[in-house]
Amino acid sequence: MLIAKACTVAGLVGSCPVRPLACLFSSSSNMAKSKFEYVRNFEMDDACLRNCYIVVRLDGRNFHKFAEQHKFTKPNDDRALGLMARSARSVMGDLEDIVIAYGQSDEFSFIFKRTSTLFKRRSSKLMTHVVSQFSSSYVFYWKEFFGDQPLLYPPGFDGRVVLYPCNRNLKDYLSWRQADCHINNLYNTVFWALVQKGGLTTVQAEDRLKGTLAAGKNEILFAEFDINYNNESAVHRKGTTLIWEKVKETVTKRTKLPNEEDKEVPVTRSRRMVQDYHCDIIGEQFWQEHPEILEDDDY
Amino acid sequence: MLIAKACTVAGLVGSCPVRPLACLFSSSSNMAKSKFEYVRNFEMDDACLRNCYIVVRLDGRNFHKFAEQHKFTKPNDDRALGLMARSARSVMGDLEDIVIAYGQSDEFSFIFKRTSTLFKRRSSKLMTHVVSQFSSSYVFYWKEFFGDQPLLYPPGFDGRVVLYPCNRNLKDYLSWRQADCHINNLYNTVFWALVQKGGLTTVQAEDRLKGTLAAGKNEILFAEFDINYNNESAVHRKGTTLIWEKVKETVTKRTKLPNEEDKEVPVTRSRRMVQDYHCDIIGEQFWQEHPEILEDDDY
Amino acid sequence: MLIAKACTVAGLVGSCPVRPLACLFSSSSNMAKSKFEYVRNFEMDDACLRNCYIVVRLDGRNFHKFAEQHKFTKPNDDRALGLMARSARSVMGDLEDIVIAYGQSDEFSFIFKRTSTLFKRRSSKLMTHVVSQFSSSYVFYWKEFFGDQPLLYPPGFDGRVVLYPCNRNLKDYLSWRQADCHINNLYNTVFWALVQKGGLTTVQAEDRLKGTLAAGKNEILFAEFDINYNNESAVHRKGTTLIWEKVKETVTKRTKLPNEEDKEVPVTRSRRMVQDYHCDIIGEQFWQEHPEILEDDDY
Amino acid sequence: MLIAKACTVAGLVGSCPVRPLACLFSSSSNMAKSKFEYVRNFEMDDACLRNCYIVVRLDGRNFHKFAEQHKFTKPNDDRALGLMARSARSVMGDLEDIVIAYGQSDEFSFIFKRTSTLFKRRSSKLMTHVVSQFSSSYVFYWKEFFGDQPLLYPPGFDGRVVLYPCNRNLKDYLSWRQADCHINNLYNTVFWALVQKGGLTTVQAEDRLKGTLAAGKNEILFAEFDINYNNESAVHRKGTTLIWEKVKETVTKRTKLPNEEDKEVPVTRSRRMVQDYHCDIIGEQFWQEHPEILEDDDY
Repeated sequence: MLIAKACTVAGLVGSCPVRPLACLFSSSSNMAKSKFEYVRNFEMDDACLRNCYIVVRLDGRNFHKFAEQHKFTKPNDDRALGLMARSARSVMGDLEDIVIAYGQSDEFSFIFKRTSTLFKRRSSKLMTHVVSQFSSSYVFYWKEFFGDQPLLYPPGFDGRVVLYPCNRNLKDYLSWRQADCHINNLYNTVFWALVQKGGLTTVQAEDRLKGTLAAGKNEILFAEFDINYNNESAVHRKGTTLIWEKVKETVTKRTKLPNEEDKEVPVTRSRRMVQDYHCDIIGEQFWQEHPEILEDDDY
Repeated sequence: MLIAKACTVAGLVGSCPVRPLACLFSSSSNMAKSKFEYVRNFEMDDACLRNCYIVVRLDGRNFHKFAEQHKFTKPNDDRALGLMARSARSVMGDLEDIVIAYGQSDEFSFIFKRTSTLFKRRSSKLMTHVVSQFSSSYVFYWKEFFGDQPLLYPPGFDGRVVLYPCNRNLKDYLSWRQADCHINNLYNTVFWALVQKGGLTTVQAEDRLKGTLAAGKNEILFAEFDINYNNESAVHRKGTTLIWEKVKETVTKRTKLPNEEDKEVPVTRSRRMVQDYHCDIIGEQFWQEHPEILEDDDY
Repeated sequence: MLIAKACTVAGLVGSCPVRPLACLFSSSSNMAKSKFEYVRNFEMDDACLRNCYIVVRLDGRNFHKFAEQHKFTKPNDDRALGLMARSARSVMGDLEDIVIAYGQSDEFSFIFKRTSTLFKRRSSKLMTHVVSQFSSSYVFYWKEFFGDQPLLYPPGFDGRVVLYPCNRNLKDYLSWRQADCHINNLYNTVFWALVQKGGLTTVQAEDRLKGTLAAGKNEILFAEFDINYNNESAVHRKGTTLIWEKVKETVTKRTKLPNEEDKEVPVTRSRRMVQDYHCDIIGEQFWQEHPEILEDDDY
Repeated sequence: MLIAKACTVAGLVGSCPVRPLACLFSSSSNMAKSKFEYVRNFEMDDACLRNCYIVVRLDGRNFHKFAEQHKFTKPNDDRALGLMARSARSVMGDLEDIVIAYGQSDEFSFIFKRTSTLFKRRSSKLMTHVVSQFSSSYVFYWKEFFGDQPLLYPPGFDGRVVLYPCNRNLKDYLSWRQADCHINNLYNTVFWALVQKGGLTTVQAEDRLKGTLAAGKNEILFAEFDINYNNESAVHRKGTTLIWEKVKETVTKRTKLPNEEDKEVPVTRSRRMVQDYHCDIIGEQFWQEHPEILEDDDY
């Protein structure tokens, strides 16, 4: 009876009516497995070209609808932005080769140092780790930012990998995202001022803004709503930049010197921590102040 | 003053001392953005070859440690397996081109139909969507399976894409995963019986099992612990297979016929729903019973 | 003096003024080489997905001009077509995993069997070998087809790789190329009849054919030039298909039996040879007559 | 009758027994072609990452045997090296975005400028064009170098593409190839001196050289054969580097000024031409003397 079981357990097609003992000793499912194992060879190598910055950008999926359903405030919801930044920190804490991350709205970009060999630079590993850690963190930390307001369903994010061969390209990538942040935030700020304070319908507000340039939008804010756009919150205007920084901490340590009594001694030590910035990263100043972020092109 | 602001707002390096009005009207950050937009061209096309099955497999990251920390029962934790399956359902509900999913332990494979054009078959989109939805669902549904036991930190999963050109290759892939499930579960079942019931240390149990075949392990279970492996839970032995099936439902509908009073009428309708199976998918029977899952090779 | 030489020979920047003997024994250019060898790691894997047909198609570069300069006859030049086929044979002789090749005009497609592991299925190796062998053969065999007419300059061909997962896709690929051959040849046949026999200018001939269907073109050929298109040369209408076939040969062998005189004995043996076909490969008949070309999808 | 023909010509399966006229007007092979045209979508994009140097390296296939059969002199055959360089020039003349090429033995590397958009940077197009032009040129120019000695069969070359993101990487690539040239040539020079002048067998020569460093090999050459390796031909020691240079030419032009007689005037003009170098390209000097070859990393 046990013999019959062994045959079945092996998970193989057919039974062993004639030679049950042969079955007992030879048919192992290890053999079955090895018969199928050739399918592993269909996996393709997707290693990223060396000496390039690896950017993983993620975007919220259907976040327009998600924002509606969770009643995000317009034009910006600080809880939602805080949760995005919190999730991004979680990703950076997990994957130390990320040298800088930049986020705005429902997107976040993570930049791996150009010499990283994490996961053998395999594109799929890098992007799925980032997106997975971000997604689970978003749900995990929801309560910290939205308190008792329930999360209605698990949100989704998509990701992609882009490579940049030199510092100029990488900085231009980040500038592109920050310019996008600026354009959208300026538009949204005026749009919702017109609707919320100016009493326009959304259609009317859209019409009013059609064809206006940055200066025109600033003028509307200033003249009609007494808003100086430059005084608006930096996190909205500039997005969030995360980098690693050495931080000095002072802790007290109990110490015993020979022939003396115990005493508490203050000890200063430095730790690498993720720091937030909400400043301009298009100009050179930020990069000059943080020369450790990028490596030389011609090392 | 507003003029100065407009220049600054544009986020560009330097100021406009000479021609402030020119700045007011011409330097829009749209222009700045378009200057950087060339970086988009560094994105590479990663579309999957047509007419191939697209498999996305995800694996828990550091789940050995995760299982320890969350006190998963050995050799199988039904709460953890249930949560995996629940998260997989969430993925299938989200991405309808998935025709079958198979999971065991801390891994799950999702198979997109070979003619799918979802996300233009872009590999990065497909795998990040799957991994993201799975990860956020895992946290979201945790409470349903673990009740008041807290989730200590957001877990991570990695993912990969593999293509299979024909039905034989795809079935062999799934067989490979199910054979792996069998081998591991048989091993773990004996191993933990030796430790939990037999009083062996983990090192002793490992030694005892070294070099044994499937039949040998069955023999130990039967002779020493009176366990018939075939009577063990199917979900542990065979893993979880999810497919779409038409399900008939009967609902009562309130109806009003002319010159009659309201009455409740039973109505039968059919719906596509995700169904669980814990059966053998290595043999042909499963595939014969569900001919709609795979498409012909030579359509 | 020899020491100085050794330093220089090492090909390294600078000299060794201080410690010449150290230089003599330690600075080998092997070391210099190994310092640079990291650049090998920038090579990317480009293996073709398994179990797919690998098609390499090559096309003449600027062959319109090449044909003019070498006075190819219109609408078809049999010397040029013969040279294309001769070069394709040379490729097939060199790379035995090619199961079929099809050519027309200045293009040729080579199909590697789906289970081929030649060059580890590396796409770059496969396509460059095909294109290189074809190009050098084209010049090498020129004289055989063009006699004393000189080749004016070395011609160029480009190549590409396309994968097809199943027999249907592969046959449709070949049908696509043969349908293209038919369309172009029918057009060219009528066009040049109108010009060469009908006395039209090329512009007039183009106008005359604008908007005509296949039947209309056949009608012109038949009614105005007494040409039955179906009787035109098959090589022009159908292109050239090359496949491997077993051919029986009878050779005489000198033999010496014991106690007998030498005598010549006829011996029959079979050899694999490349055979030409100029037949329809769109319909099923060709494939039924040569079942050995394709492998089953579901092996 | 013509109608029947039209149906057949269309190359479609089956005939049109019932509605011949419908066939006449509707069934065009254009339709057949469009039915198959979906196969084009199986082509994959293989564009090279932007802002990287694109290196195409080709290598002779089975050139050891080719050299034997064509009686190349040892350790170097100047005819063969000349033919390689001549073929490389032909490639450079054809593809102007190549900024530098380097060759030695039976290999040649071609470097496309990092901002090239030739063939939309498609890897397959770039490598097949290079390899094709090189191969046809090799046969075409054979006579110029080998005179009446016949080429016995068309030779083959394989190719590959490698990307380098920065100048340092590219220079290190070229250094790697030149260091390889040096190592091989030094070895071969001593080896063949031992055999040809020293009377050793090839096995004895191999044994003698086992484990020797560069300096040891130099010593053998100098002490035993009175050869100062540094005085050996630069083309053998350093390989061949091809770059574009502006060259001033003086030509005489016949000119007619008003009220004067015709006269011949010398006119100086500059042309871009491919120049050969056989110098060190590992050190900085070469690059400082030709600053136009590479573009800045941070343009």
